[in-house]
Amino acid sequence: MKGVKLPLLWENDKLKLIDQRKLPLEETYVEYDTHEGAFDGIKLMVVRGAPLIGFTGLYGMVLYAQNHPKSSVEDFNKAADYLNTARPTAVNLSYELNRTKELAKNYFDKNGTLEGVREDLLTLAKESFDRLGRDNLAMAQSALKELESLYGDRKLNVITLCNTGYLACGPMGTALGVIAHLHENNRIEHVYASETRPYLQGGRLTAYELCQLNVPHSIIVEGSFSYLMKTKKIDAIFIGADRIVLNGDTANKVGSSTLSIVAKRYGVPFYVVAPTSSFDFDAKTGSEIEIEMRPEEEILSCQGVRIAPMQSTALNPSFDVTDHEDIAAIFCEKGMIKNPNTEEVTRVCL
Amino acid sequence: MKGVKLPLLWENDKLKLIDQRKLPLEETYVEYDTHEGAFDGIKLMVVRGAPLIGFTGLYGMVLYAQNHPKSSVEDFNKAADYLNTARPTAVNLSYELNRTKELAKNYFDKNGTLEGVREDLLTLAKESFDRLGRDNLAMAQSALKELESLYGDRKLNVITLCNTGYLACGPMGTALGVIAHLHENNRIEHVYASETRPYLQGGRLTAYELCQLNVPHSIIVEGSFSYLMKTKKIDAIFIGADRIVLNGDTANKVGSSTLSIVAKRYGVPFYVVAPTSSFDFDAKTGSEIEIEMRPEEEILSCQGVRIAPMQSTALNPSFDVTDHEDIAAIFCEKGMIKNPNTEEVTRVCL
Repeated sequence: MKGVKLPLLWENDKLKLIDQRKLPLEETYVEYDTHEGAFDGIKLMVVRGAPLIGFTGLYGMVLYAQNHPKSSVEDFNKAADYLNTARPTAVNLSYELNRTKELAKNYFDKNGTLEGVREDLLTLAKESFDRLGRDNLAMAQSALKELESLYGDRKLNVITLCNTGYLACGPMGTALGVIAHLHENNRIEHVYASETRPYLQGGRLTAYELCQLNVPHSIIVEGSFSYLMKTKKIDAIFIGADRIVLNGDTANKVGSSTLSIVAKRYGVPFYVVAPTSSFDFDAKTGSEIEIEMRPEEEILSCQGVRIAPMQSTALNPSFDVTDHEDIAAIFCEKGMIKNPNTEEVTRVCL
Repeated sequence: MKGVKLPLLWENDKLKLIDQRKLPLEETYVEYDTHEGAFDGIKLMVVRGAPLIGFTGLYGMVLYAQNHPKSSVEDFNKAADYLNTARPTAVNLSYELNRTKELAKNYFDKNGTLEGVREDLLTLAKESFDRLGRDNLAMAQSALKELESLYGDRKLNVITLCNTGYLACGPMGTALGVIAHLHENNRIEHVYASETRPYLQGGRLTAYELCQLNVPHSIIVEGSFSYLMKTKKIDAIFIGADRIVLNGDTANKVGSSTLSIVAKRYGVPFYVVAPTSSFDFDAKTGSEIEIEMRPEEEILSCQGVRIAPMQSTALNPSFDVTDHEDIAAIFCEKGMIKNPNTEEVTRVCL
C-alpha cells in the first residue's frame, strides 16, 4: 500500500507496531526488542486482525532468536508456546508459531545448533508478509476484473463492513484491499463504511484507512443498509471472512448476513474476499460453525460510557453466517468462486 | 401505564418533559412556560416519539395562548407554523398543530377574539392525550388477538426497534405498548431490544421501559438481526411508524426496513403499530416520503466521545421506508390492516 503507515515494521532489528488502540485519533508506533514485548503487543491488543497477529508471532520469534543466539530447541519451543498464549484462539498465531518451531527443528537437525537461525526466521517472516501481500493483490485483481465485466470502467459505490484492510492484514487488506485496488484504478465513486457495532471497527479503523488512502467515504450505521441500497446506487458489497466452509457459507463479523440478505433483495452483488487459509474444508455447511459470544459490556457501553440501564443485559454474538446463496462470488488468491457452493469451492480451491 | 413516570406532564400551567437525552441513567424533568421552549424541547430531542412530539406541539400552543391572550389568528397560526419546523418529518406534529389552528379559527369566528382560547386548547390537549391511551390499548388488544390466533397462549420471543413505548407516546406505547400488553397477559418469553444506532433509543429508552415494566430482555445491535432470526425462535417483530402512506408503506426509524427484509427472509411476521393519526392518506406510496437527514456528528461520535477520524464524514438518514409487502399487518385503533395495501388501508381507515 503506497504512502500509508504500515501497522507492522521491522527496522533496526526491532519490531514496530502501530498502536491500534489509539487509532484513528492518534498514530503512534510501539517498539519491541524482545519476544516478551511482542507477547504484550498481542495481549494488550496493540495489534489486531488474525494475519497481523500471526506476523507479530513470527517477528516475536525473530526477536527471541536475536536475543538468545545459543538457545536450545527446547527453550525455543517454550518461547513459541509462551507467545501462543497471548491470544490462544487466534488460529494464524499458532499456525505461524508452529512454522517457526518446525524451521528451528530442521535447522538444528542440520547444524547441531540454533546459532544463526535468526536469519532464516527473518526470511520466513518477511516472505510470509510479502506473500500475503501478493495473495491479497491477486484477489483484488480478480475482483477488479469481475467488476469490469459487470460495470465497465465506471466509478462504483460500494459498502463494506468491519475492518479488513492493511491494519488487519499487514501488507494489504482483503475486502478493503479490493476497495483500495479499485481506488488506485480510479473505479471508486464512494465507499460506505458500516460502523460495525459494537466494537466500531468500521467507524474507527476502516474510516482511518480510507482517510489515509484519500478514498471518498461516509460512515453509516448497520440499520441503514436498506435505506442505502434503495436510495443510493450501490454497485457492490465487499466483506472479509473469519471462516468459509465447504459449501461457501461464510462466518464473518456480525452484520454480514443481515447485509447479504438486504443486498439480495435489491440485487446488489455481495462479495467475500479471503485467502484460502480462511477456508475450513472439514466443515460442510455453516451450521457447523460455532459462534463466539463476546462480553455484554461491549453493547451496554460505548467507548467506555454506559448507555443501557444498569439492570439490562445484552446478547453479543461476534459473528454470523452468511448463506452461500446470498454470495455472488468469493475472491481468494486462487481466483474467483462464482455462485459458491460445494462443487465450485472444491473446483477452485482443492 | 401503572407505576411509571410519564414523559409529559402539565402542572401549574407549565409543560414538564422528562429529559429523554439523559435516560436511562438519570430521570429529570425540564419545565417549559413558552411555546419557544416547547420548540426547543422538540428540536433538541428532550422529547421524541411522533405522538409525544404532537402533544408537545399541542401544549406548546396552550403556552402560546397563555402568554399571548390577545393574539391575532394570524400570529397564532405563525406560532403554530414555527413550532411545526422543529421536526418536519413528524406528521403528528403538523396534525396536532393544524387542529389547534382550526380550533383557534372556529373560536375566533364565534367570539371575535382569541382571548380565552387557552382553555379550549388545554381541553383539546388533555383529551387527545387520554384518547391516545385508549387508542393504544385498542391496538394492543387487536395485536394480542392476532398473536393468539397464530400461537395460542404460549409465550413469545419478539424483536423491537427504537423506542415506541410510553416515553414516545405519552399515556401508553404503540409497538412497545403491544409488548407491555402481551407481558401483562403473560405472553412474553423474551424481548430483543435493538439498540438503534446512532441515537440508541433502543439501548437506552426501550431497555429503560422494559426494566420499569420488569420484562425479560436483551439489548442487541442492528447487525445481529439475521443471527437472531436464524438462531433464536423469534415469533414476531413490532415497530412503530412515523408515517404510513395510503398503500401501507411505512416510514420509521432507520433500521426498520432492514429488519423487515430479514424478517421476510426468515418468515417472521413483521407488525407495524400506529394510530391513524400517523397515516398520511395524501401520499400514495413510500416514494413520496422525504427522509430527514440528521447531523453526521451522531454517527461520528458516540455519547460525546469521538469515534471516527477527524476527516471522515457520515451519512445519517433518520428514517427508512418499509415496503408494505414486508408488513404482515398494521395495528391501528380502528383494527387490524392485514397484508396492507391501498385497498385494505382504505377499507379499514377511511
